[in-house]
Amino acid sequence: MSSEYARTERTTPSRLPERATYEQNAIHAVLDEALLCHVAYVADGLPRMIPTLHVRQGHDLYLHGSTGSTLMLAAREAAVPACVSVTLVDGIVMAKSWFNHSMNYRSVIVHGEAVLVTDADEKHAAMAALMEQIARGRAEGSRYSNKREFAATAILRVPLAQSSLKQRSGQAKDDEEDLGLPHWSGVIPITTTFGEPIGVDEIELPDYLQNYARGSLD
Amino acid sequence: MSSEYARTERTTPSRLPERATYEQNAIHAVLDEALLCHVAYVADGLPRMIPTLHVRQGHDLYLHGSTGSTLMLAAREAAVPACVSVTLVDGIVMAKSWFNHSMNYRSVIVHGEAVLVTDADEKHAAMAALMEQIARGRAEGSRYSNKREFAATAILRVPLAQSSLKQRSGQAKDDEEDLGLPHWSGVIPITTTFGEPIGVDEIELPDYLQNYARGSLD
Repeated sequence: MSSEYARTERTTPSRLPERATYEQNAIHAVLDEALLCHVAYVADGLPRMIPTLHVRQGHDLYLHGSTGSTLMLAAREAAVPACVSVTLVDGIVMAKSWFNHSMNYRSVIVHGEAVLVTDADEKHAAMAALMEQIARGRAEGSRYSNKREFAATAILRVPLAQSSLKQRSGQAKDDEEDLGLPHWSGVIPITTTFGEPIGVDEIELPDYLQNYARGSLD
Repeated sequence: MSSEYARTERTTPSRLPERATYEQNAIHAVLDEALLCHVAYVADGLPRMIPTLHVRQGHDLYLHGSTGSTLMLAAREAAVPACVSVTLVDGIVMAKSWFNHSMNYRSVIVHGEAVLVTDADEKHAAMAALMEQIARGRAEGSRYSNKREFAATAILRVPLAQSSLKQRSGQAKDDEEDLGLPHWSGVIPITTTFGEPIGVDEIELPDYLQNYARGSLD
């Protein structure tokens, strides 16, 4: 059994806490499989949110941004309290009652201070890792950023110390008194499918992009 | 050409605003196709976020919740400033340079006050619409909520008045000076695939769940 992140008031779901886990390997697997996260932060007392790319490195999450974005500009002044969500949807759960309808999902929520990465080596490593998160082999399979591009890219780091995974899997659960009802109940599985790569020019598809699929990077 | 939602400071992206549109039909289509949204709000000055189910009705978005959740408890006291994001991912865009990598996506961001729905008729209609959002035909195809279930369900309403759609589609865009590089550039399309429904019991799959697919409800 692997280590766990700490349970805190902020990482304990108010609803169905029995679906939550703090197991590091399980949390990492979801972060590594997902292509996209949502980052929420507060500006002028109001909630804001952007979707962006992320990559996990050890116990840190790196977020991709542009130096011109509101979030990145705020992070230049000071660390920004952030809430990052990564959600993978695995199925639609249809029960005999409205109330017992649900989804099968894996949802990681990370609370933490988002810090702008200013060290050039750390930033370059995070940018390379973001390429590898897109496709393993891609960091070496495309041109590194030049000085101008490097400067125009902003990377935020959020520690995973306050993170949790909430998940549901398996069949629909009907109440005892509903079992005789004539309504269909069950699950419609959902998968993310990657189609045939469509090249811009005549350059051959590299081996590392054949049969593209996603899963944990570990 | 259809009507547009108002452009405001909050709905104008700080980055790549040329990718933003306020066209109501386009925004509705994304909200209607998606199964899931993320809702960000502020509690004790800090950002919080939950994934949940949503359904659009006209120019309002209804969000599903439990009466015990932090967000719903806050909404019992007063309207809660919220930011709702719905993101559909359509492809991975790989360019010859790291910098020009991107995603093809459709991302709606809604800013607005989330109000707890207290009128029983409006609440019932929203709950039925949420069932229809899961699968058209499902509201009549499963048992309505009884009094206890109805009371344990919370529904929030957020107006779409401040909403925008940001999107990217099409091929990778390489810089002129990169065109001679040997790196593959192009797009890997992404689709969400719905598998064969797996029933709990022997009840036949209803017609409305045959060949389940998602798209705009309109």
